[in-house]
Amino acid sequence: MASKADVQVIINGKVYTLSGYESEEYLQRVAAYLNNKIMEFDHVEDYRRFSPDMRSVLLQLNIADDYFKARNQTERLEKEIEERDREIYELKHDLISNQIKQESDEKKRKELESENKELLLNKAKLEATLEDALLGKVSNKKELENEKGRSGRH
Amino acid sequence: MASKADVQVIINGKVYTLSGYESEEYLQRVAAYLNNKIMEFDHVEDYRRFSPDMRSVLLQLNIADDYFKARNQTERLEKEIEERDREIYELKHDLISNQIKQESDEKKRKELESENKELLLNKAKLEATLEDALLGKVSNKKELENEKGRSGRH
Repeated sequence: MASKADVQVIINGKVYTLSGYESEEYLQRVAAYLNNKIMEFDHVEDYRRFSPDMRSVLLQLNIADDYFKARNQTERLEKEIEERDREIYELKHDLISNQIKQESDEKKRKELESENKELLLNKAKLEATLEDALLGKVSNKKELENEKGRSGRH
Repeated sequence: MASKADVQVIINGKVYTLSGYESEEYLQRVAAYLNNKIMEFDHVEDYRRFSPDMRSVLLQLNIADDYFKARNQTERLEKEIEERDREIYELKHDLISNQIKQESDEKKRKELESENKELLLNKAKLEATLEDALLGKVSNKKELENEKGRSGRH
């Protein structure tokens, strides 16, 4: 990506020339983080009394502690993502189950509507036949039987 | 939580006594991480030529780099969690919408079933009336009108 470049940073008041592929912006951020830590340490009286070697090791341990804590957080977050993925899987599963049920309900509803329509038609025919009987248009038993046959049966 | 205790660790071949609240196990893990880094550095010829001060700063920068990368990962993971939370929210919303639709479908289905039942009853009554007419049991127009009235109309 980036080309190798020399970047000058100031750490604990000294200039260091760093050569690498990291951007200058990034290296300055890292240097600022180190300077902040050193400044915090300098405010602690105990720390000032330590040898330069001990101070350096304590600083390294402190940065490593930040790293370990960040890594722990990373692990926690990864677990949280796993939990959410499981939840998403279950929700999607529920949605699919619902969809299948909905399709079956839809089919049932259409069947009922179709049955209903047929029954209404049948009713109209039966009523018409009865009307004919009332008006004496169907005069004998045979004709009535025929009419009844036409109206259909369930 | 834990009480303050002195823990001895070896870093770069020297013994350091650390006083703090962290567990010995944790501090040994951090020391091992530092020793690994120092060992890796010692394998790089350039590094061995640097002054102790430069070596120490490079080590600090390297640990800080691990920390920054872990923190970046933390931020990425937090964004992933936000995305998943949004997805979960939407899925739950869809499930609730489906539930409402399902309840309405259920109601509609029950209405249709009830209508069907009534139509079937009505059909049976109309057929019986027609049967009576066929058999000549209902002999005049007035009686037929009454029968028809009893069968109900839709």
